Formats: sequence, structure tokens, C-alpha cells
Amino acid sequence: MANKKLLLLDVDCGLDDAQAIMMALAAPNVQLLGITCCHGNTKIDNVCRNVLRVLKVCQRTEIPVFRGTCGSLLGQSVNAVTYHGKDGLGDVPDPNAPGLEHLQTEHAVNAMIRIVTEHAGQISLVAVGPLTNLAVAIKMDPTFSTKLKNLYIMGGNMEGRGNTTVCGEFNFVADPEAASIVLNQFICPTYIATWEYCLRYSLPWEFFHKWIDQGTEKACFMKKITGHCGKYAMVKKGDKEEHSQAGFVSCDSFAVAAVIDESIVTEYMQCRVTVELQGALTRGMMVLDTLNLLKNQNQAFIMTKCDMEKFKQLMTSALK
Amino acid sequence: MANKKLLLLDVDCGLDDAQAIMMALAAPNVQLLGITCCHGNTKIDNVCRNVLRVLKVCQRTEIPVFRGTCGSLLGQSVNAVTYHGKDGLGDVPDPNAPGLEHLQTEHAVNAMIRIVTEHAGQISLVAVGPLTNLAVAIKMDPTFSTKLKNLYIMGGNMEGRGNTTVCGEFNFVADPEAASIVLNQFICPTYIATWEYCLRYSLPWEFFHKWIDQGTEKACFMKKITGHCGKYAMVKKGDKEEHSQAGFVSCDSFAVAAVIDESIVTEYMQCRVTVELQGALTRGMMVLDTLNLLKNQNQAFIMTKCDMEKFKQLMTSALK
Amino acid sequence: MANKKLLLLDVDCGLDDAQAIMMALAAPNVQLLGITCCHGNTKIDNVCRNVLRVLKVCQRTEIPVFRGTCGSLLGQSVNAVTYHGKDGLGDVPDPNAPGLEHLQTEHAVNAMIRIVTEHAGQISLVAVGPLTNLAVAIKMDPTFSTKLKNLYIMGGNMEGRGNTTVCGEFNFVADPEAASIVLNQFICPTYIATWEYCLRYSLPWEFFHKWIDQGTEKACFMKKITGHCGKYAMVKKGDKEEHSQAGFVSCDSFAVAAVIDESIVTEYMQCRVTVELQGALTRGMMVLDTLNLLKNQNQAFIMTKCDMEKFKQLMTSALK
Amino acid sequence: MANKKLLLLDVDCGLDDAQAIMMALAAPNVQLLGITCCHGNTKIDNVCRNVLRVLKVCQRTEIPVFRGTCGSLLGQSVNAVTYHGKDGLGDVPDPNAPGLEHLQTEHAVNAMIRIVTEHAGQISLVAVGPLTNLAVAIKMDPTFSTKLKNLYIMGGNMEGRGNTTVCGEFNFVADPEAASIVLNQFICPTYIATWEYCLRYSLPWEFFHKWIDQGTEKACFMKKITGHCGKYAMVKKGDKEEHSQAGFVSCDSFAVAAVIDESIVTEYMQCRVTVELQGALTRGMMVLDTLNLLKNQNQAFIMTKCDMEKFKQLMTSALK
Repeated sequence: MANKKLLLLDVDCGLDDAQAIMMALAAPNVQLLGITCCHGNTKIDNVCRNVLRVLKVCQRTEIPVFRGTCGSLLGQSVNAVTYHGKDGLGDVPDPNAPGLEHLQTEHAVNAMIRIVTEHAGQISLVAVGPLTNLAVAIKMDPTFSTKLKNLYIMGGNMEGRGNTTVCGEFNFVADPEAASIVLNQFICPTYIATWEYCLRYSLPWEFFHKWIDQGTEKACFMKKITGHCGKYAMVKKGDKEEHSQAGFVSCDSFAVAAVIDESIVTEYMQCRVTVELQGALTRGMMVLDTLNLLKNQNQAFIMTKCDMEKFKQLMTSALK
Repeated sequence: MANKKLLLLDVDCGLDDAQAIMMALAAPNVQLLGITCCHGNTKIDNVCRNVLRVLKVCQRTEIPVFRGTCGSLLGQSVNAVTYHGKDGLGDVPDPNAPGLEHLQTEHAVNAMIRIVTEHAGQISLVAVGPLTNLAVAIKMDPTFSTKLKNLYIMGGNMEGRGNTTVCGEFNFVADPEAASIVLNQFICPTYIATWEYCLRYSLPWEFFHKWIDQGTEKACFMKKITGHCGKYAMVKKGDKEEHSQAGFVSCDSFAVAAVIDESIVTEYMQCRVTVELQGALTRGMMVLDTLNLLKNQNQAFIMTKCDMEKFKQLMTSALK
Repeated sequence: MANKKLLLLDVDCGLDDAQAIMMALAAPNVQLLGITCCHGNTKIDNVCRNVLRVLKVCQRTEIPVFRGTCGSLLGQSVNAVTYHGKDGLGDVPDPNAPGLEHLQTEHAVNAMIRIVTEHAGQISLVAVGPLTNLAVAIKMDPTFSTKLKNLYIMGGNMEGRGNTTVCGEFNFVADPEAASIVLNQFICPTYIATWEYCLRYSLPWEFFHKWIDQGTEKACFMKKITGHCGKYAMVKKGDKEEHSQAGFVSCDSFAVAAVIDESIVTEYMQCRVTVELQGALTRGMMVLDTLNLLKNQNQAFIMTKCDMEKFKQLMTSALK
Repeated sequence: MANKKLLLLDVDCGLDDAQAIMMALAAPNVQLLGITCCHGNTKIDNVCRNVLRVLKVCQRTEIPVFRGTCGSLLGQSVNAVTYHGKDGLGDVPDPNAPGLEHLQTEHAVNAMIRIVTEHAGQISLVAVGPLTNLAVAIKMDPTFSTKLKNLYIMGGNMEGRGNTTVCGEFNFVADPEAASIVLNQFICPTYIATWEYCLRYSLPWEFFHKWIDQGTEKACFMKKITGHCGKYAMVKKGDKEEHSQAGFVSCDSFAVAAVIDESIVTEYMQCRVTVELQGALTRGMMVLDTLNLLKNQNQAFIMTKCDMEKFKQLMTSALK
């Protein structure tokens, strides 16, 4: 364990969170100290159950799972049912799903603070859902972020293009205030996989189909839960069905891949970032301070180029 | 203790917080289970020390004091130095001030949740500073508010008149998101002493001077710490000095008085309330939904009339 | 004419605009130089026709009527149909209504600029609808306001209480940007009858019923067009119908009354005012700068007390 | 004239406006019916004088010039002095500058409406400053835009990257409400050269230096007025000076080039666009509705690819 990267994963376990968790579990150089759950792609109870299901499929139920915040700071919510299904994992019946009694009793936020304090300077925190847990953590412990080794985020924009609102990406729009707290108050090296980055490096659908057809138990699980998503991505064009999107996008996996293998991201843009909270159309949009007008202390590393071959290998390993 | 009202006080201990705490301590029908500290009138360390100083003067150091959040959710801050002094209590040297080692080690938010859970349905929470601790509490425990007996707040407006920004009252402006979370997500009977209410029922300066000249140890303490405030309230008019404000306003005491003796507030307006978060001039302003257009579940009781004789008696008792 | 007050009326002719016009026409000390029409209570074509109808009833068709802006600056609209009827005057058939060919061909904004320039320093502009025409006028002629004698407005709030949105009054909410332009860029004595002022000085329903039952042609017209409004104001309470509002409120008449007889307003509050443009709940709310924090040059006179006997006399004269 | 493209140019004549005007004047297939002036890069009086100076240098003083709005709708202003100089054209003394008596007396907005009405369906309006004049025009004449052949705009963003505020381009930030009115209320084919487009197709500095050194009278004029700008663009790097920006950007010329020769823009993105008015950081940012969530009727053509060889030829011709 001494040479392994220590990870805490904060997830709102929908489909791509499941993929990201499985990628982290498959990485031999990673030690996953715990998974904290956050509302987002589905309700917190579903998120918790989904994480337990993923750990069971991967036979890694020893990893502690913690329940966290059940809604955004301001209480507004965003619907992600169409893509992830009502239960977050494609609405496939799972009679053997583990019960919520397998959750730790400690609150996710308290657990994050405790674990990060116990391993000060060593933990990479990977947050791939709304940032509510992280925001509450730094309010409970103002020194929280300085005890992190670094922070990897999937969320936000780099070109003002939205996937949930006109200009807003889902994770940030789902809790803009939390995103603002993290980007403005966390003082630690911060790496961000934005929506535009994920979209630019979408995987060919051929890859996706091969990927879920590997025949392993994990691949079968993935095939089952993405059936819904597959249908969602298909649209009728004349006589035949086509994918509505140019490729398969596993957003959260980009953040986990970046922490597993730093050489996967071959170019970053370094600049101050924050979140628009006041906009009628841009509320939740990540803002890049290319003109150096902002005053926040932290500069983030915005991922701009990805080594796709390496990324595909990590994806493939995740289901082996 | 069985017949006493159980109180938790959340303060940002400046001058009127000190007065409010002393009023609560002097009330024979009240059992104060703890004081939680919040940033606001001064820095959190000063707030904690000030509370310990007040308890010492009142010889009630057995009451547990908890350190809470050190800044607003979004990290913006509002200056209250001019009125309360840099240390929050008039910048009077106090060589015998108790050290911060007298604080409990438990975080204020965790303490609030624990105490309220232990005495479910019995606690009156009185919050007279920015509402950051309460906001974080309900994020950590979504059932927090439903375990309260009721909530008393000093803060906000009822006529759009500000004391800190054009339209904003200090406690709400100091953390508008927290105020919004409390007003929209707390489900419990909520009583609010607004800035306009406090201003309308300001006390004559003659009362103030008699009050601090009672000669008791508590009155001497009060006289000392309000010296600064006294000067602040004086302005030169021609040859002589005059009070700049029509009367002496002890804002936080109005909330504590209302919980000690319900008959002190002789009229309430009942309506839904929320907080404007987006305004350029009105950010932090409390909004009264007189047209019934809002959808939040909770209706607040806005204090509109005060029995001043009873209020003066509680004020007087506070320094006896 | 030399001793008469010169008036320009800018209206969005609904019911209270009709009342206000008739009050102005009945005042012997007033010379009405023209009526400019603005969208608001109803569509601009209806507004124009309604003004022509009122002038016909009052046999004053010599007064020039000008068509102005047909929508708010930003193009958003607010519905006032419930109160004023779809046609703005209670949806009562009027087969003899004058045609729109009786309108002047000059645009209302150009006419306002021309008339005010011809009578520089002499015109009282009374604006009782959304302020779009006035806003465009000062953009077309930056010296427009300095050539006015003074400006009377019906609109806005003084205590943050709305009649259209939670915190917003109809005329200001109908074009917040225009209201902001007028309050911030006009440099001339400005008198404002706010919604709360109009509401505070509502007339008893007994007065209203006597008023429309005077038997004159004008009173008959008023009775006819307010039939709708009368019903609107009635609600079933148990076995009998009651007025839903405490009294009859003729908003626009308060602005016209103030210019006809200055002694009618017995108390003003003088302060800088502006309009919140950014708020989620307060957009369009008039903001009073009681703390002197704003920088705009103009201080407005906010009407706070009304001599009701004099007001009633002007109301009565209007229908004689 | 029958076969020529009829143009109206609306400018806030700074340096790139001068370049754009000269490009239009040099185009043999273009008939320039008038130039309307708008505040922006410099004060309206300077703008008017600068246009007259440019026409004089080009010996085209027969083209009518109209004074328009002198400030943004809401009265806020943005400073452009650093780049364009205090007088808008590099602060080079010009003792022979034509006087403002050469301006037409008709207001720019009235002139725009008149000319567009006289040539309904034939005019290409090219707006390369803040859009205040166009916004007022459509308020004065709601049919204004439908009488245009098309509209070319230099302004706004396509990737949320600002040049004046964090996310805002100068022309849109200088009057966000006007930009919103134009993008939402104009119904006509609309072509937009955004800041990112102009930046992407900046010209090599070698081109710039050859361009101003052609030796013609026009080139000498351009060399003189861009001296300031040249210095502005230089920064010390170690021992030598370097251009601070990768290339020379003549923003407004991109809009004029596109109307002169449609084949210059080789790729457009077609989508609904609007402007964020409410943001704390994004106010004035152009928003692209790639998700089809907005409801405005007009789809704009956002320029994305430019034939640089053709563009350079037009630039070169402008100074011949």
C-alpha cells in the first residue's frame, strides 16, 4: 500500500460513476480508501445502493461506503432520469442488490474529514458528482483542502457549452453554490475534466459495443445497466436507427483516468476558474479567467488533450 | 428542569449578542443547553472568546460553548467593526478573558445536531447571527429542523429597508445562502425579529443610560463594552453631541425576549418568506410573500408588535 | 393658458388611466398638451383606442393622441387582463368608438421631445404606465429630462410589497429597464406615487358606488367600464359577496391629483431611488436608498401622506 | 447602383471601425448609404468626428453621417481608451479634422428607420459598435428589422472567452440590453463575427507592417493612427520588445468583409443566440443555444471559418 496512490471517490452513482469506480478498482497502483455518496444522477438512497452493487460485482465489498448530502445546498434539483434511469443504473431489476445496512454509519462529510486528516497530504480526492459533500466538508473543517494531495473533478465547462442548461454542465448546475465553494475556497492542486473535454474525447460506438461484449461478469453487468442508455442514445433516421451522439461519453472516467495515470492528459490549460451563480442562462457555468481578472488564490489545471489509446486501455481493464 | 424551556443559542457574539445571552441567562424559566458560535459581528475566535467572557461575568461557565463555521457559505464577508469594535465587544482590554481551551472540542454543527436529537421536539433554537451553522446542520442532517420545537431568528427585513446594504440587514447579508437554506428548508414554527421591527421598538437613550448605570457587575461590564458603541451613536449637531439614531437598539434581545415570554410579541404577520440571492441591490433582502406566489412549505411568524414594558423588564433583569 | 399648468400625460389606458385622464381634463388649472400612449394594461392599439374613447366621452377630442412603444425594452410582457379586461376598459362593447385614424402620425417619443423642447421648463410630465416611452425619449434626446418642469410617476414600491410579482409593482415590473433609465438618468424634480401609497389611501367602496352613480354621461361611462372590475373585486364569503380588497384603488389618479393640487400630498420622503434589475424575486422592485449608498444624481420625492378629502373632491369632479 | 449592395454602417469609430469603413468604401460592389454613429470606443462627438476624418481621407465626404445614442441604455460605460486612445483614433493631432457641422441634423435612429423604409428589403445593416442605435430603432419602429435585407454584427462570443470582462466581448458588454434586444427581437438573417472568430483569424504582424507601409495617403493615415495601438501591443520581454498578442486583429473588418464577399466566410454555425443580462461574471456574454432550449424566433449564423487570402486582399484594397 505504501507505493499506491490513495484515493477517495465522491460519486452520485449513475452509469458513468459506475464505470469510473470500476476503473479505479481495476488500477493496480491505486488504493481506494472509501467511497462517499452524493445526490445527483439519482436520489441518495439509490446512489448508495448502486455503489454497493458495483462493489459487489467487483468483489470489493470491503471498501467502506458513506452516505452524504441528499440535495444541493439551496435545495434545487436537476433531473437526470432520462439518461441514467430512475434508479441511476438503467432501471434493471437486481434482486440480489446489497441492503443499505452495509453502509457505514459515519456521515460522508465527517468520514472525508477524518480520512483526509489521518492521511494528510496523501489523498487524491476524485469528485465526479455535484460538489455538495466537498463544500460542506470545507465549511466543517476550513483546513480540509490543504490536507489533500490534490483534487480531481469531473464537471463544468471550458467553452460555455451546456449539457443540462444552455450553458451549464450537469454536476455544476446540480449545485452551483457547492461548485463555487470548491473552486474558490479549496487551496490544493485541482484538475478538471470539463464537459467539452469529455465530449471531444468521446469513444467510437464500436469500441463501446466491444467493451460491453467482453463476456466477463463485470462486462455483463455493464451491458445490462447501459441497455437503457444505449436505447436513449439511438434515434430513428429514416429506416434505421442511429446513435444520436457522435460517440460514447463516459464523463466520470476521465477524472479517474487522470489520477490513475498522469500521462493520460497531455495538455492542460492553467488558469483561475469560478462559477457563475447569478446568471439567468449561465447559472452554474464554469468561468475561465483567461484575462486574469479574478482574485481567487487557486489556479486549476483544465484538461485539454487526452492520450486516447491509454484511456481506452484503462476503460478496457475496468471490465476485465 | 422539566418545566423550563430548553434553549440553544447560536450567536456571532457582538454587543447585542452579549445582551441577548445575558437576558437568556437571567430568565428563570429558561434552561440554556449550549451556545454555538458563528462568524459574523467579528471573527470566530473573537466570537468564542466573547461568549466565554459573558458566561464568566454571569458566573455560568458550566454552559458548553462550541466553535462553528468561520465564514459564510460562499466565503464573502461583511464588516461590522465600526459598531461592535474589532474584537466584537467594544475593544476594551480584558486581561482575564478565558482562553479558547474552555471551548468544547465538538464542532458546533455536530453539537447542535446531537443536542437537538437528544431532546427531539423540545428545543427552541435561537439564532441571532448569520445562519451558516444552521444551514450546514440541515445539510448534515436533513431531519434537523423537524426535531426542533421552534426557531427564533433575529435577521432580515419586512419592508425592504437595509442597515448594511441598501436593502439588506446584516445577519442575512452576511450569509444570504444560509438564510435562504434556513427559510426554505427548515420545517418548524419560525419566529422572526426583523431589522425594521427592532428599529421600530428602539429604547429611549435615557433607558439605556439608566440600564448600564445599575452598578451591578453585569451592568459595569455592559457599560464598559458599550462605551465604543455609545460614541459611535453620537454625532455633533452644532454645539452639542446628539445620538445619531432615535434610540438604542438591542436587536438580538428581541429574539431572545420572544422565546422567554411569548406574550411580549402582541402581533405577528404570518406568511411565507425567503431571501433574494440574485439581486444587485437586494441580495440578502428577506422577501415577504404577501401575494402567496411562493411554494415553500414553511410559513414564518414575522413579529410586528412588541409589549415594550415587558421587554424593558427583561432587559433590566439581564443586568441585575 | 398662461397661468395654467402644462401637462403631458403618458398612459397605458386601463381603468385607472381613464380615471386619471378624466381628472386631468376636469381640472380648470390644467392645460393638457397631449396624451402619449404606451403598452401596459393592454395592447398599444387598445390603449390608443381607449384614450380616444375617453376624450370623446369628455368631448375633448381636440387633444392630440400619439402612439408610442408597443412593448417593454427587453420584450417581456406582463398580463393585466384580469383586472382591466382584455381591451383594457372592462370589455364593454363600444360600437361608436373612434377609429385609430384619429391618432397623430408623429411617434409618441418624437412628439414628447418636440413638445417638451417647445415649452422648455414648463411641462409637467405625468407617467402612469410602464416607462418605456420616457426611456426611449432620453435615449433619443439626452437633454430631454432637463427641459421638463417636473415628472410625476405612478409606479414602484416603498416597502418591497408587490402587486404583480412578489416584490414588484405592475408598471415597474412591466418594464424594469425603462424604470431604471428614468430613475437614474432623468435629472428633474420627480414625484412618485408608489403602490403602497395608493393602497394605503384606497377609497371606501361606498364612495366608489356613489361616484359611479352620479348619473352624468361620464359617470355612466365609468360605471359601464368598471362593471368587470367591480365583479373582479367581489368574492363569496359564506352566503354573501364581499369586496376582496379593503377599498377602491385608483392608482394613476394619485399621480394626476398630485400635479393638479400640490397640497394634496402632505408629506414626502426625499431620497435616491432606483430599480432592482437582477433579482430573481425582486426584479422590478423600486429600491429606496435610505442609507445614502447610491450615487445617482436625482433624489425623488416619495409621496407618503395624502389629504383624502381633497383627493375625493378631485375624483368627484372628474365625473361631473 | 442597381447592382450594388446597399449598406448602412453603424460604428463607434475607433481604429478597427476606421479600417472597416475604409474597406467598405474601397469595395466596388458596395453602395454606402450612410454611416450612423454610436458611443463605444470613444465618446459620441469623437465618433462623429472620426467618421468625418475617415471620409475626408478617402475623399468620400458626400456620404451622410448621423449622430446617434451617446451612451448605453442603462447608462453604464466601458472604457476603451487604452487601445483606441482617448479620441478613438490614437490621439494623433489632426488640425484639419472636419467640424461637427458636417453631420446631418437628423438623428441616427430616425435616419436608419427612414433609409431602411425607403429601401425595404434591400439594405444590409452592418453594426460594429455597441448595438444601442439598433435597439432604439426597433423600439421606435417595431417593423424595422423585417425591412432589412440582413444584419451583420461584430460582437459577442462563441466560447465564453472575454476581452473586456471575464466572459464578455467589448461591444456586447458596452450595452448588454441593446445586444439582447437585437438578438431577440430582430427578425432577419443575422451574421455574427464573434471575438473568438476575430482572434482565431488574426493577421501576422508582418502583414500589418507591410499594410501600413504601402505609402498611399490612406496607408499613411492608418500608420499614424495605429502608432498608439502598435505600442500598446508591444511588451518588453527580456532585452527586446515583442507583440503582446499573437497577431493583428481588426475585428470590425471581419463583419464588413463578410457582407462585401459572402464567400469569405466558409463555415457558419447556425443557432439561436442571446445575451446573458443577469450574470455577475457573464453579464454581456453571448450565449449559443446548442441544446435548442431557447424560444426566440431568429437563428443567427455564427462565422466559424474564414478564407484568409480573400480577407487579406480586402484589407489591402482598403488602403490603396
